Amino acid sequence: MLPEVIVIQSDAPPAGPVGMSPTATWPHQPLAGRGARLTGGLLHDWQQRNLAASLPLALRQLEVAGNLDNVRLAIRSAADGAAGAAARYRGPVFMDTDIYKTLEAIGWELAHGDRPELASFAASAIGLLRQAQLPDGYLDSYFQVTGEPKYSRLASSHEMYCAGHLIQAAIALQRGGGDSNLLDVAKRLADHLVREFLGQAKGLDGHPIIETALVELYRETGSADYLALATQFVDQRGAGLAGDSGLGRRYLQDTVPVRQSTTEIGHAVRALYLEAGVVDVAAETGDTALLKSSVDRWADMVAAKTYLTGGNGSRHSDEGFGDRFELPPDRAYNETCAAIASFQWSWRLLLATGDGRYADHMERVLYNGFGSGISADGRRFFYVNPLQRREDHFEKDDPGRRHEWFSCSCCPPNIMRLIASLDHYIASTADDTLYLHQFTGSRLSGAGLEVEVVTGYPWSGQVQVTVLTAAGGERGLAVRVPAWSEVTGFRLNDDPERSVAPADGYLLLRRAWQPGDRVTVELDMTPRLRRPDRRVDAIRGCVAVERGPLVYCFEQADQPAGTRVDDLEVAPGGALDAVPVTLDGVGETVQVRVPAGDVTAIGVPYFQWDNRDGGPMRVWLPAG
Amino acid sequence: MLPEVIVIQSDAPPAGPVGMSPTATWPHQPLAGRGARLTGGLLHDWQQRNLAASLPLALRQLEVAGNLDNVRLAIRSAADGAAGAAARYRGPVFMDTDIYKTLEAIGWELAHGDRPELASFAASAIGLLRQAQLPDGYLDSYFQVTGEPKYSRLASSHEMYCAGHLIQAAIALQRGGGDSNLLDVAKRLADHLVREFLGQAKGLDGHPIIETALVELYRETGSADYLALATQFVDQRGAGLAGDSGLGRRYLQDTVPVRQSTTEIGHAVRALYLEAGVVDVAAETGDTALLKSSVDRWADMVAAKTYLTGGNGSRHSDEGFGDRFELPPDRAYNETCAAIASFQWSWRLLLATGDGRYADHMERVLYNGFGSGISADGRRFFYVNPLQRREDHFEKDDPGRRHEWFSCSCCPPNIMRLIASLDHYIASTADDTLYLHQFTGSRLSGAGLEVEVVTGYPWSGQVQVTVLTAAGGERGLAVRVPAWSEVTGFRLNDDPERSVAPADGYLLLRRAWQPGDRVTVELDMTPRLRRPDRRVDAIRGCVAVERGPLVYCFEQADQPAGTRVDDLEVAPGGALDAVPVTLDGVGETVQVRVPAGDVTAIGVPYFQWDNRDGGPMRVWLPAG
Repeated sequence: MLPEVIVIQSDAPPAGPVGMSPTATWPHQPLAGRGARLTGGLLHDWQQRNLAASLPLALRQLEVAGNLDNVRLAIRSAADGAAGAAARYRGPVFMDTDIYKTLEAIGWELAHGDRPELASFAASAIGLLRQAQLPDGYLDSYFQVTGEPKYSRLASSHEMYCAGHLIQAAIALQRGGGDSNLLDVAKRLADHLVREFLGQAKGLDGHPIIETALVELYRETGSADYLALATQFVDQRGAGLAGDSGLGRRYLQDTVPVRQSTTEIGHAVRALYLEAGVVDVAAETGDTALLKSSVDRWADMVAAKTYLTGGNGSRHSDEGFGDRFELPPDRAYNETCAAIASFQWSWRLLLATGDGRYADHMERVLYNGFGSGISADGRRFFYVNPLQRREDHFEKDDPGRRHEWFSCSCCPPNIMRLIASLDHYIASTADDTLYLHQFTGSRLSGAGLEVEVVTGYPWSGQVQVTVLTAAGGERGLAVRVPAWSEVTGFRLNDDPERSVAPADGYLLLRRAWQPGDRVTVELDMTPRLRRPDRRVDAIRGCVAVERGPLVYCFEQADQPAGTRVDDLEVAPGGALDAVPVTLDGVGETVQVRVPAGDVTAIGVPYFQWDNRDGGPMRVWLPAG
Repeated sequence: MLPEVIVIQSDAPPAGPVGMSPTATWPHQPLAGRGARLTGGLLHDWQQRNLAASLPLALRQLEVAGNLDNVRLAIRSAADGAAGAAARYRGPVFMDTDIYKTLEAIGWELAHGDRPELASFAASAIGLLRQAQLPDGYLDSYFQVTGEPKYSRLASSHEMYCAGHLIQAAIALQRGGGDSNLLDVAKRLADHLVREFLGQAKGLDGHPIIETALVELYRETGSADYLALATQFVDQRGAGLAGDSGLGRRYLQDTVPVRQSTTEIGHAVRALYLEAGVVDVAAETGDTALLKSSVDRWADMVAAKTYLTGGNGSRHSDEGFGDRFELPPDRAYNETCAAIASFQWSWRLLLATGDGRYADHMERVLYNGFGSGISADGRRFFYVNPLQRREDHFEKDDPGRRHEWFSCSCCPPNIMRLIASLDHYIASTADDTLYLHQFTGSRLSGAGLEVEVVTGYPWSGQVQVTVLTAAGGERGLAVRVPAWSEVTGFRLNDDPERSVAPADGYLLLRRAWQPGDRVTVELDMTPRLRRPDRRVDAIRGCVAVERGPLVYCFEQADQPAGTRVDDLEVAPGGALDAVPVTLDGVGETVQVRVPAGDVTAIGVPYFQWDNRDGGPMRVWLPAG
């Protein structure tokens, strides 16, 4: 029996975070319209949790922490010059972005169904922002409240970083909720930036994101000035124009022009948002040399500056990248926002190249270094995601437990906006082929096909794709085969199972599809031991465990009584068992059991750690 | 033929950094009078270099960097309220301490002979300080110039840290040069502190050193208030009285009372100067429980928070201690000042217990983590002493090369004061026994013996101690046998060589000594491979090389053409060769050659690294 058919408008523009481009040269396109819907599995559960638990927390915290009050102060400052307002401003200069990220999450969420409380919050917040925006289009509560001169200290002011998040929120509300009220605000602010900066060398924001935001606004509006300004900002970086906030130009990626840069340096989140903008600009301007520089840096980063969890950032001192192969597990920074930026960068490279390794990496980031950023109940968050916690672990900036909110709370609403938009990252089209990149229960429409995906991923490795409707003629259906799947089988309808010979990371099937056609892919979920690259000094002599897309960790809570995590030592060669269980505080999971001398070490997926006690944890175990 | 006999006044009070105590309960005493003189070998060379190259640099830099100008500004501020002076103050709040450390070095140096330029500088600087001191005894150029309220922000003000260094300088000038002019200044300042703080709970300096300085001033003057105030400061720490400079109370060792603290935490230099004060207070007050707490923390630190080089401080972010066994070689902080503080703490524990492991550790620190802080020519300095430098190494706070001076230049003059005083740390007496702790050409007088030490240490392991004069009766002569010396021989006069059975780390010989008696000790200088404690994650699977007291490192400059340091891999089992050479830029040394697959890896002593190119370096090599 076929599932209920959903009618999807396939000629609509994409409704996700990367819009249909008037000029883009990339081979892949996001699904047209609302071409993807999550219907089951872990990613769907994450979206449900986001709606039920995380977003209500954000709405409350934006009042508690003072973000909305800052905007109200800005309104009153404009009205009556409110004496003493500066002293009442709360939080870091970029407090507005927490509002914008939450609004962006709401925008994507509104596409999933009626959300009256979210819509009402958005209407009210947008109302405040409209009131706060100055007649010339400028909008930044910190600078309006304090009266500090605008654009006078861009190395640290985050004014364009705030603007970028505002633009992204406006686009999400437009595409997801059909609400153009914030888009009007965003355009007026972007026009202000164009007037102030286009064709000038007056300054460069210390925290990129404006680049990718302006390209998106160009996609949404067709206004070429936005693309021109984004291109200019990419071209200007590297010459010191951003200034120095005290942590040096390297921290701001402002020491080497983007086209000449060969490796990621400085603050990880900044570096990775910049890269998303670089690929956007390259795609929209057809600049293949610029694209290649980003492709090359991505390869360098993944080879030498990325943790097994997909995390980036080896150093606490500047929340930044370290030397090549400097990847300490204990003091890893791996900011959750860096995982989000990395995910967004890889998505653009996937669209720009069609190379499955970007989708593989997105998967690694999603299920590990990003997934760890939020607790099982959706109400606590990690800013920093280390791969090891010792018994006496101490970090000033990260007490080693997830928190409900932070004084600098960039990560929680950032997590929410990504989870709310996950449906847009699971598939794409290239010509007449529908590509399936990430696996969860879903319905997809693109390239003349409508399909339903059924899978218990990542707990099981079976992915079933059933054709619901198909336009006439031969079309392609491509299913990603992750590089980690050593033995992969597939079956078309009732054919005998065959082993997959993937091309560029995909099983590509071309035929004249009929409703009811079913492709079943069996990914290899055998637990496996990973050995580190010999150049990574910090984990020499250790092994880690992976199963499917999941990196495992060993928490004290799961070990046999009397066995300390720090005493575990694996003797490679023993068989690893995978055992589905449901754990208090964690929920559904699959444990992996690893022979370790006289005992059996028990691992759980890394993204599920710290949902119980605050005991020791290790991803990498010494190997005898 | 006996060497020339020097007459040493053996009933004089000790003339070094730890004075004769009116009340001390410790079993060992520093040599009486100027009982030690360096006559040859590496430590003597270091003192000569300090005099010829380092101190002249310091004298120049104290003008160039503005330290002395700050004092001149303070004088003018007092005289005429100098408007705008605050803006002309240069450097961090503790700029005065660079002057004090230099003066301390001069004090110790003046005991070695006529030093007219140093004496003249000291007279002039002391003149400025006398002028700058306020009538009530207060002296701190930063607070006098800026007019900020005194003692109002002790977490960060360093006012008592400055006072502590002033007191130590004054004592050195008094003991070494017989100049009491600065001692008068120091006493007036200490009296001011007594009036402000004794019997009160008004505040505690964020940066300890005042504790040990006040005990020394008590030893020098006999004024019990100084000891009482030092004791009070030790007792008050742990309750939050120091406040918070933004890096937390833990950074200031102000979270747990000293008596209850079990492990070193926070900023390493602060923690270790505090410990010197703790032992001083314990010794002078007979507080055995307090002493035991310090003894226990030392053992914990050496076991779990100390690098092979004797360095302390695993983290750049707070210049501080990390978790137990968190000892990354690449990002080790190991501030040179921490090595100095550790050396001074261990010396006090050695005096307080007579346990040779403290002298062993002082040796490790001296020849490795401290020795690396200064270049072969004595004109460049490391603030940070990592055990690894990668090809693309980057640190904002340490570009990986020694520098002539720093914007925060605490280390260079601190190195100078320790080197100038090294003669005082090589021997002690306990009852009728003369203990020889550190080996270099020297003449020593104590416990009724005058001896000459001849040795090529640390390049060779033979140490020859010849009795020059001996008081009547049986007396002890004890020579340290380092724990690393696996096979140690000794010979008394023409007796056949015997193997040593050391007690508590010493070869102790008792007899009625005669002039001309000669003890020859042969320490085991066979190069040896060290394996790390399995709990140190960052160097698992690696080995290091030591020879005698020296930790070795592998610099790119010494490797065979085409061999990258990061590709070296040692297969343990091969024989290690020691080869004496003289290297350009480095000078006299002994290389160690280690079989590493198809090539021979060549190591030089760690303290001699970075005297040539800025290439990669490793102490720990992967072991196959």
